[in-house]
Amino acid sequence: MKTVTTIKEIRTVVERWRRNRKTIAFVPTLGALHEGHLALIRAARQAGDRLVVSIFVNPKQFGPGEDFERYPREPKRDARLAAAEKVDVLFSPGAEEMYPPDFDTAVVVQKQLTQTLCGASRPGHFEGVATVVAKLFNLVRPQRAFFGQKDYQQFLVVKRLAADLNTGCEIVMLPTVREADGLAKSSRNAYLTPEERASAPAVYQALKLAEGMLQVGERNPKEVIEAVRKRLRAEPKMEVEYIATKHAGTLEDLNILAGTVLVAVAVKLGATRLIDNVLVDVSTGS
Amino acid sequence: MKTVTTIKEIRTVVERWRRNRKTIAFVPTLGALHEGHLALIRAARQAGDRLVVSIFVNPKQFGPGEDFERYPREPKRDARLAAAEKVDVLFSPGAEEMYPPDFDTAVVVQKQLTQTLCGASRPGHFEGVATVVAKLFNLVRPQRAFFGQKDYQQFLVVKRLAADLNTGCEIVMLPTVREADGLAKSSRNAYLTPEERASAPAVYQALKLAEGMLQVGERNPKEVIEAVRKRLRAEPKMEVEYIATKHAGTLEDLNILAGTVLVAVAVKLGATRLIDNVLVDVSTGS
Repeated sequence: MKTVTTIKEIRTVVERWRRNRKTIAFVPTLGALHEGHLALIRAARQAGDRLVVSIFVNPKQFGPGEDFERYPREPKRDARLAAAEKVDVLFSPGAEEMYPPDFDTAVVVQKQLTQTLCGASRPGHFEGVATVVAKLFNLVRPQRAFFGQKDYQQFLVVKRLAADLNTGCEIVMLPTVREADGLAKSSRNAYLTPEERASAPAVYQALKLAEGMLQVGERNPKEVIEAVRKRLRAEPKMEVEYIATKHAGTLEDLNILAGTVLVAVAVKLGATRLIDNVLVDVSTGS
Repeated sequence: MKTVTTIKEIRTVVERWRRNRKTIAFVPTLGALHEGHLALIRAARQAGDRLVVSIFVNPKQFGPGEDFERYPREPKRDARLAAAEKVDVLFSPGAEEMYPPDFDTAVVVQKQLTQTLCGASRPGHFEGVATVVAKLFNLVRPQRAFFGQKDYQQFLVVKRLAADLNTGCEIVMLPTVREADGLAKSSRNAYLTPEERASAPAVYQALKLAEGMLQVGERNPKEVIEAVRKRLRAEPKMEVEYIATKHAGTLEDLNILAGTVLVAVAVKLGATRLIDNVLVDVSTGS
């Protein structure tokens, strides 16, 4: 595995691959790799002749007061894990390489996709994501890029910009990887105290409750949201940021749950923000 | 010359060229080609193994009430002119090909570069330009793209986004091509009545007056702007939209004219909006 930190070098490598008609698969990450990332990397390894993983804690997608500074950084462990998965190139540029002082451009996915859910609670977050992804796609020129379902809204935003800007990159989503007790794998789980960690699986339990309600015919979003809220309220340290049911394609609200429904939750457990979601197909339901 | 109207087809052509290590030069236009475009096309012809000219009247860069509907469209004449210049591919997609119904992404160059001059009088214009250029660059994948000095602010905006989004495309600016009487060539000149056309060269005359003042040592922007205004006022049908002196790199205002100075003018002549500018190097001036 080759580790690349400059734009010049990643361009050279990618240009040579493309000339030799190699297809390129890409997994962009913030590092602190966990089993969720490894699932993406393994799928990407099968999906292209060459595989690039990027590790970049992108300052533009963290808001003021968020956890940019303390976000876990484990470059040596990440490199070891990536090499074991036969990653061809690990691209880990510095912030000054990606954002020189006169940098002044943003990629903005507009309207519904970025205004709701995490977009409402983290203003500027998806603009930061869209901007860095557009840059990385131009540098890596992948035919396929892989994202996890835990960040479902991010997947939709990236899919939108990849199509709209004619990047030629197909966006693939893979299911959320979970701990044995259901907690979605996340680099931020490392922040949890033992007590918070014990409480955290309630998020997925509440989502499974919602899924069960939909599967037995509940079509009223208020009922579903209320049941999720009730389950989360049982955790004394948990603060709900949002509980929502949405059209899975457009993130629009639904008066009657139908089609593929996204049930999404964001909570705070102490200082740690956790998100999770399930997709439920109720198109053939009662 | 091959004429291509679909995204699928332009991708196929470009991918083949790049595999064969051909360099690609690109001239994006709104069509209604004039001598200004032809100068760009001739320079581009020398600058790459393959040459793409795009013709796309981009609805996103026209504001409400602007001239999108009546903008001159002369596809047959454009194709004849491009073929005569040995253009390899003329890319002229329809609006629905570039902006399908669910399109929802914008590329935004922020702050100073887009807030002043034409950015102030045409809100959303440079966002439309930046968005379509980002798309076209992803489709055509040029090593070099060519723009005219008449749209100097556009050149700066495109240069900014090309660097910031890591397009790998060098942006080249060529001098404004003019009529014998000094009027900058523009597709919009076709709108002018004979009376307006007779009055139009005053814009360049006023700019040359400013240039002369700078060359003999005037460093006070107010004096320069006032002299330009006085010259333009002599034209009874001419309405000034802006007259400005700016730092040519940043478009910032200058208290004392120094370095490379942009003197830029926008006027309305009847229903027609005309812009023009000169760059004056006063770094070694008195």
